[in-house]
Amino acid sequence: MYSIAIHGGAGAVPRHTLSAERETHYRDGLAAALDLGYAVLEKGGSSLDAVTAAVRTLEENPLFNAGRGAALTQDGAAELDAAIMEGRQQRAGAVAAVRHVRNPIELARRVMEKSRHVLLVGSGAEEFALEEGLELVPNTWFRTEERRAQLESERSGRPVSDLVPSSQGTVGAVALDAAGDLAAATSTGGMTNKRQGRVGDSPIVGAGTYAKNGVCAVSATGHGEYFIRAVAAHHICAAVEYRGLTLREAVYDLLRKRLPELGGKGGVIAIDRGGGIVTEFSTEGMFRGARDSSGLRKIDIY
Amino acid sequence: MYSIAIHGGAGAVPRHTLSAERETHYRDGLAAALDLGYAVLEKGGSSLDAVTAAVRTLEENPLFNAGRGAALTQDGAAELDAAIMEGRQQRAGAVAAVRHVRNPIELARRVMEKSRHVLLVGSGAEEFALEEGLELVPNTWFRTEERRAQLESERSGRPVSDLVPSSQGTVGAVALDAAGDLAAATSTGGMTNKRQGRVGDSPIVGAGTYAKNGVCAVSATGHGEYFIRAVAAHHICAAVEYRGLTLREAVYDLLRKRLPELGGKGGVIAIDRGGGIVTEFSTEGMFRGARDSSGLRKIDIY
Repeated sequence: MYSIAIHGGAGAVPRHTLSAERETHYRDGLAAALDLGYAVLEKGGSSLDAVTAAVRTLEENPLFNAGRGAALTQDGAAELDAAIMEGRQQRAGAVAAVRHVRNPIELARRVMEKSRHVLLVGSGAEEFALEEGLELVPNTWFRTEERRAQLESERSGRPVSDLVPSSQGTVGAVALDAAGDLAAATSTGGMTNKRQGRVGDSPIVGAGTYAKNGVCAVSATGHGEYFIRAVAAHHICAAVEYRGLTLREAVYDLLRKRLPELGGKGGVIAIDRGGGIVTEFSTEGMFRGARDSSGLRKIDIY
Repeated sequence: MYSIAIHGGAGAVPRHTLSAERETHYRDGLAAALDLGYAVLEKGGSSLDAVTAAVRTLEENPLFNAGRGAALTQDGAAELDAAIMEGRQQRAGAVAAVRHVRNPIELARRVMEKSRHVLLVGSGAEEFALEEGLELVPNTWFRTEERRAQLESERSGRPVSDLVPSSQGTVGAVALDAAGDLAAATSTGGMTNKRQGRVGDSPIVGAGTYAKNGVCAVSATGHGEYFIRAVAAHHICAAVEYRGLTLREAVYDLLRKRLPELGGKGGVIAIDRGGGIVTEFSTEGMFRGARDSSGLRKIDIY
């Protein structure tokens, strides 16, 4: 048994604002990432490689809020966060507030595999990216016309939640490989109009990203501040490991009880030790996909 | 009932390397911070004010690895991290990789109280500090001769663990006030010879700092990378809330089982809902103090 799930962000995505043509583009983008990640698993590759490949694909796609097409800060720049974690030894790597690294998820993985550290931020993270030979691009490379318009709308008081794509999106992937190893990865541009230097839950181990073999792997999306305060991903895995909840019950406990207590909304993709996939959200929609070796393959938005 | 506990870092502090005179200085520094925090509680102040006051005092003391006297990065600079969290609404604020903010714990508190965000890093965090009118100082203000010597030793291959003070220290405080509100705060310069931009567990909600009313408040110290991967502070609180462990059992579970599985060491101070204090460590020592309204008052190192 092996399986993979991905998300391209949860948020207010009013159905009527998403044209059929645009919806097709989103579905195509999700399918490309899902199938690429799945192909890694199918060839006997690791869950770590599968989630890296899926998230990298979503970073390259300007429709999603990660890498190219990232939401913009209040001063109009793209600032990117990402994290990756593997469940066997629970090694993890993360980066935050980077402005020039083309694929933040690759940098997060290098931090995990090549540095003594777990989390690097800002210019220190970019120094490491250069040492590792990763591709750097000008900040303008990430910025799309659509994100500029969103930032303008937000600045002029029009709520960005009326717009597509969501201003609080994230992309992420979780996978179980044939060897029984779990992995999780998340990447984001954060929220539109955020302060320079603001870091959300995505690169925080235990908040937006977490994996532990025998328990579960989680990638979250939503209003990051609430996910940090709820220690969301670890809340789910701890509920499975110590409270005996099923993964679905644990995800519901987060989305329907814990986050609402704090005032937060969002979505989660998760995989349990047996490869069972849960994708749930408390927002109107979540771009998502799931595929496993039993023949399941689906892409959904609402 | 109200109580407060503080720490000034755990680590390899071989007893023979700490002269009697130096030990007195450490004890005096801990006592000053402990009593200042306790005085806030005694006057009916909040646990949030108590932990802020205690940590601020330790930041100002060059003996401890936070604020002035911070451990230095591989390029010889001080880079500071801090977090604060209150247990009633579980609001939190944190900053990382700041180089000029005299009291990072005050900035963390401003992030909690005055921004829409939880975590700000680098120059964006300092921009916010300036907007809030906090004091900025040149980076040289933080650097002490002792820390420069430690960095040189580390660079030349002599393990810093032979030196006092520890190169992986942190300072922190946890408190319960008369209103029953818990709070936790942690501040650090991180580890000696860290990469620029490296962020440890201190400013990560759920890793180095966490508070939830009715459950517990935790501030951790040690090798931050392991505490991040273990989601240490939340691991403890979840064990109390969901596994029915006592706070002491939960702290032991972290220090004797969870962290060793990953390969990590360190220390923890924590307070339970009833004000009971636990201070434990898996290193040779931890600078610590505890005081409560029943008359307990102690300062310990080993």
